[in-house]
Amino acid sequence: MIKLQSDYNSGAHPKIMEAINKYNNDSFICYGEDEMTNEAKKEILKYLKTDSDIYFVVGGTSANQIAISSALKPYEGVLALPSGHINVHEAGAIEATGHKVLTLSDSLLINPKEVKKNLEEYAKNDVKTHMVKPQMVYVSIPGENGLVLPKKDLEELYRICQEKGVYLYIDGARMAYALSSEYSLEDFAKNSDIMYIGGTKCGLLFGEAIVINNPKLKEDFSYNIKQRGGLLAKGFLLGIQFKALFEDGLYMEIGRLANNMSSYARSELSKLGMKFYYNSLTNQIFPIASKKLYEKLEKEVSLEKWFDLDKDNLVFRIVTTYKTKRKEIDYLVKIIKENI
Amino acid sequence: MIKLQSDYNSGAHPKIMEAINKYNNDSFICYGEDEMTNEAKKEILKYLKTDSDIYFVVGGTSANQIAISSALKPYEGVLALPSGHINVHEAGAIEATGHKVLTLSDSLLINPKEVKKNLEEYAKNDVKTHMVKPQMVYVSIPGENGLVLPKKDLEELYRICQEKGVYLYIDGARMAYALSSEYSLEDFAKNSDIMYIGGTKCGLLFGEAIVINNPKLKEDFSYNIKQRGGLLAKGFLLGIQFKALFEDGLYMEIGRLANNMSSYARSELSKLGMKFYYNSLTNQIFPIASKKLYEKLEKEVSLEKWFDLDKDNLVFRIVTTYKTKRKEIDYLVKIIKENI
Amino acid sequence: MIKLQSDYNSGAHPKIMEAINKYNNDSFICYGEDEMTNEAKKEILKYLKTDSDIYFVVGGTSANQIAISSALKPYEGVLALPSGHINVHEAGAIEATGHKVLTLSDSLLINPKEVKKNLEEYAKNDVKTHMVKPQMVYVSIPGENGLVLPKKDLEELYRICQEKGVYLYIDGARMAYALSSEYSLEDFAKNSDIMYIGGTKCGLLFGEAIVINNPKLKEDFSYNIKQRGGLLAKGFLLGIQFKALFEDGLYMEIGRLANNMSSYARSELSKLGMKFYYNSLTNQIFPIASKKLYEKLEKEVSLEKWFDLDKDNLVFRIVTTYKTKRKEIDYLVKIIKENI
Amino acid sequence: MIKLQSDYNSGAHPKIMEAINKYNNDSFICYGEDEMTNEAKKEILKYLKTDSDIYFVVGGTSANQIAISSALKPYEGVLALPSGHINVHEAGAIEATGHKVLTLSDSLLINPKEVKKNLEEYAKNDVKTHMVKPQMVYVSIPGENGLVLPKKDLEELYRICQEKGVYLYIDGARMAYALSSEYSLEDFAKNSDIMYIGGTKCGLLFGEAIVINNPKLKEDFSYNIKQRGGLLAKGFLLGIQFKALFEDGLYMEIGRLANNMSSYARSELSKLGMKFYYNSLTNQIFPIASKKLYEKLEKEVSLEKWFDLDKDNLVFRIVTTYKTKRKEIDYLVKIIKENI
Repeated sequence: MIKLQSDYNSGAHPKIMEAINKYNNDSFICYGEDEMTNEAKKEILKYLKTDSDIYFVVGGTSANQIAISSALKPYEGVLALPSGHINVHEAGAIEATGHKVLTLSDSLLINPKEVKKNLEEYAKNDVKTHMVKPQMVYVSIPGENGLVLPKKDLEELYRICQEKGVYLYIDGARMAYALSSEYSLEDFAKNSDIMYIGGTKCGLLFGEAIVINNPKLKEDFSYNIKQRGGLLAKGFLLGIQFKALFEDGLYMEIGRLANNMSSYARSELSKLGMKFYYNSLTNQIFPIASKKLYEKLEKEVSLEKWFDLDKDNLVFRIVTTYKTKRKEIDYLVKIIKENI
Repeated sequence: MIKLQSDYNSGAHPKIMEAINKYNNDSFICYGEDEMTNEAKKEILKYLKTDSDIYFVVGGTSANQIAISSALKPYEGVLALPSGHINVHEAGAIEATGHKVLTLSDSLLINPKEVKKNLEEYAKNDVKTHMVKPQMVYVSIPGENGLVLPKKDLEELYRICQEKGVYLYIDGARMAYALSSEYSLEDFAKNSDIMYIGGTKCGLLFGEAIVINNPKLKEDFSYNIKQRGGLLAKGFLLGIQFKALFEDGLYMEIGRLANNMSSYARSELSKLGMKFYYNSLTNQIFPIASKKLYEKLEKEVSLEKWFDLDKDNLVFRIVTTYKTKRKEIDYLVKIIKENI
Repeated sequence: MIKLQSDYNSGAHPKIMEAINKYNNDSFICYGEDEMTNEAKKEILKYLKTDSDIYFVVGGTSANQIAISSALKPYEGVLALPSGHINVHEAGAIEATGHKVLTLSDSLLINPKEVKKNLEEYAKNDVKTHMVKPQMVYVSIPGENGLVLPKKDLEELYRICQEKGVYLYIDGARMAYALSSEYSLEDFAKNSDIMYIGGTKCGLLFGEAIVINNPKLKEDFSYNIKQRGGLLAKGFLLGIQFKALFEDGLYMEIGRLANNMSSYARSELSKLGMKFYYNSLTNQIFPIASKKLYEKLEKEVSLEKWFDLDKDNLVFRIVTTYKTKRKEIDYLVKIIKENI
Repeated sequence: MIKLQSDYNSGAHPKIMEAINKYNNDSFICYGEDEMTNEAKKEILKYLKTDSDIYFVVGGTSANQIAISSALKPYEGVLALPSGHINVHEAGAIEATGHKVLTLSDSLLINPKEVKKNLEEYAKNDVKTHMVKPQMVYVSIPGENGLVLPKKDLEELYRICQEKGVYLYIDGARMAYALSSEYSLEDFAKNSDIMYIGGTKCGLLFGEAIVINNPKLKEDFSYNIKQRGGLLAKGFLLGIQFKALFEDGLYMEIGRLANNMSSYARSELSKLGMKFYYNSLTNQIFPIASKKLYEKLEKEVSLEKWFDLDKDNLVFRIVTTYKTKRKEIDYLVKIIKENI
């Protein structure tokens, strides 16, 4: 059965597995103090062109929790879209560290002007010490809806944050798929205070690279990782994987391959007259289909229903990965064509 | 200058001060284990007609923080209106204990049907263990806007909470002013799991009575008070005040006197054609006035501007208390009449 | 019955009550933004001779919780004696804010050299990022045992803290009784980063003054008070009390009167051959008595048994206050003399 | 160079790697809802012979943090030896969830009688609501020193806990090495409320199995894992590993092989007259050596210095694993013999 439902329901890219197997019997220092980890950091920094500090952790919720709680004072909160992963899908991991997730108005992409207005209204509030102080802005690139904040918006958002003395944090769980002619990893590093480069959804067994760009956030960071339960004993496993992921540009290639296939799918489905709920150019696309069509489709292809649009129609999600083959998309298109 | 801006910017009711002075040289057991405290609880229970547990704390944020955090498990949250005091004006006191404030849609009063729908949608969510579990509903009676949730709505809300196994918590900072022919204290106690009866805004120097109606929430409650910094060393001061507040129905009288004056003001201002932004029947009313009028008004009467309605008009707040005199309202009305 | 069991089981000093009564009908700005609060701060600063920031809160556990949690990053802890109030008697109020209380070895007074050694051993530990970082030292002056850290030890301790980049915090719940020819309030302010001057156990109805001496700890402090539930709505009550407590040196007098009486008691009891368990010169003294004697004593005088020393003997506590009279001590001595 | 310094500084047992490789291209449901995870649980339950709930997490600090914080109410704490891993080496991970680690007196193994006394003294304390309530006992089996609490002591400890209504939690980071003729996994499951079976130090790439034996602790457990950042996205990796670890008794074999080698080493070194600091029968042994000898030794064998015993002597640690070969021990013994 063709699998287009997820980018993290299977093991690692063959080159990653090869590296893990290669080093399986070697002996390393524990807790991320090993040579592989150091080399992995160097490989990533080649792309960032910054003097950022890098730490590896196992998962995305852990990365978000550690990055955000390490930067904020107890009374400070983080601004996010209502649909933000930290606001909805992390079981209160941020609040568990004592911090409020402050919500902006509901929209597909974060709006720098609304952030500016929010910060300015807060600053002039008479009883602002009775309120949570917004001290960080959280943005996912790409978002859960596959959309990528345009570069000029990210730059404007970061200018606003710097002007207001507020941190900008990028959740890059699927950052590989946001890379394009517009965006390089360097752009993300230079337009944020802290971010994470996701590995779990981009070819690794597991692993996320927290990247600290703002020197003010670097001090004593590793304590936070240990205290929040995020320090992997065999940290070299993260080093080995990230080294393999970055040393020959594999990360970029994984993003490119997946995006090529989603682009191909989007184009072929458009030819059949299909519409898309979000205008995504990354590896997740969201076609609108009749429920009847979807019923037939899901018998042949693993997909995820996103939500019911109305009585007769729904939105579903196609996720492509480095493993997705053109003939798999062709087969999907064929079934749709026959049933539309 | 006439003072109509607040119900807690001055000391205590004369009878409360009399009691404090009377016992000033007596010797008591500390930390709320004294006889005055026990008697105060008994006086309150006469009105509640329940076997609730009662604990006294100094302030409202402390009461909310202790009551909510003591009832919830780490991954559980509390549903509230976006404008709820705990969501906006407590500097993240709930999140500081690790719990998320989950927000309903914005409205003047909490809607039992929306709560029901929210709980049911949560329950059927596929990934609900990735989300904060709504385990308590927070409602202020009266609300910040002076409005009182109708009794049938409170009863419906409590039925829903009981059916869904969720706690209902009433923030009664100004509960005295919600008492009426419709509502007695008994009604609140019988339609909630836990609540607090506010003293600070109803005639005391300070003090709030946390009332635990649901036996499941009673165990070991006093540990929570101490741990959250809410245990008053000279707890007998709370006992003395609450005893004096309840033994001759003073609490009810304080509410009645203030409501009579706000009712009189509302009626007189209506006669002048003034409109009110919220349809409040409690001790806070919110007339709409031209900015010009308000400018003149605030030179003679202490009031609080609530917000700008448009370029020319604003909403302001009149707060009455047991101290408010008919002639003060008459004077206010006179100035308005001359400047309208 | 003569009362020598506690310094906080009764109301306030007459001058404090007089001030509260005097201002009871005046109208003030809430939340500590009022003029009385500002004046109280000025009165205290006259004694401190620093440019410290001062905030008033209601109780000691609240003061400790707010002061400590506001200064520490999540992974940092506070060093204290095992018998420290924060370690034993605050129901985990410090841990509730996420911070570990790190314990020194058990001793009557904190030993600056042990603190130094502790900090140095921590600093050279190979896996120190797996450990809680000691970033504050907590010292009570006087301690629970009535003993006062000698001034040269406090000075040495503060030098060590400054050298190591660690904060020194003084819990001054009974600071009035530590004032002497050796110590002025200025000495405490100049030898600590943050401290609180206790009011509850020194003549007030309630109230503690948090004094921030280190500019690094001043920023945004008031958010912490609100978030931890410590902000008194009618903050002017704290201002009124502390102004009255400091404007004519009443605080110093309260300390002096109590210490004079404990000194008299100590001297008279020594003449009878009684021994003391701790060598306290403050308002708490700890005589050793046979259980037989104590049994008779407690029928005539309110006292507190401290602990059993052996089968036949125990240690009890005598607490003197500004209210204690020479004839009360004489009566105590008389009973002891008759029964020894 | 011979490696005897650690049991977790290298990859996984070949059979584990084989399983991971075998399933690398298969597609699984995420977040531990997959079939491999279910099968792994069944394999483990065959050994436990209980109806325990099992959850897999990545690391030990995470397991401790989640297990402990999920069981305790905010004001409750966990009793541990001062040397307990949670008290010293987890950067305050327990306190970060709001709970105090309460310490027993320093000793090599937890003493059931001291626990009993501690709980009884707490229960009769007059001001116990001002203190953290001990509600869980933490014990590592084996401990950091390689010692195993005798089975009769564990049974007594569990009886005491049950009698007092307190939970018993076993940290089984190295549980494989505590298995013996005395102890089976079943014994641990039947004598604790909750525990974890360690994988990281017993042959896995990573992974610990939290086992909940007490039904009261089972409800909603998975929320806690997500909220504390411990839910692995590709949870099937834990399922695959634990299935392979238990289906043919590999876990038991890993423990046996390592213990055989440490036993052999202990016996051979004893023949040379060497003494051991702890009387450990598990895979960590702690010989005492002159510093001169150790200096020579560490040039040929990777070991870990534990601490300086005196000016001339030290204690070092030998750790054996399933990979340790008899000839490696022989070589170690030979060097010692030549230099003793």
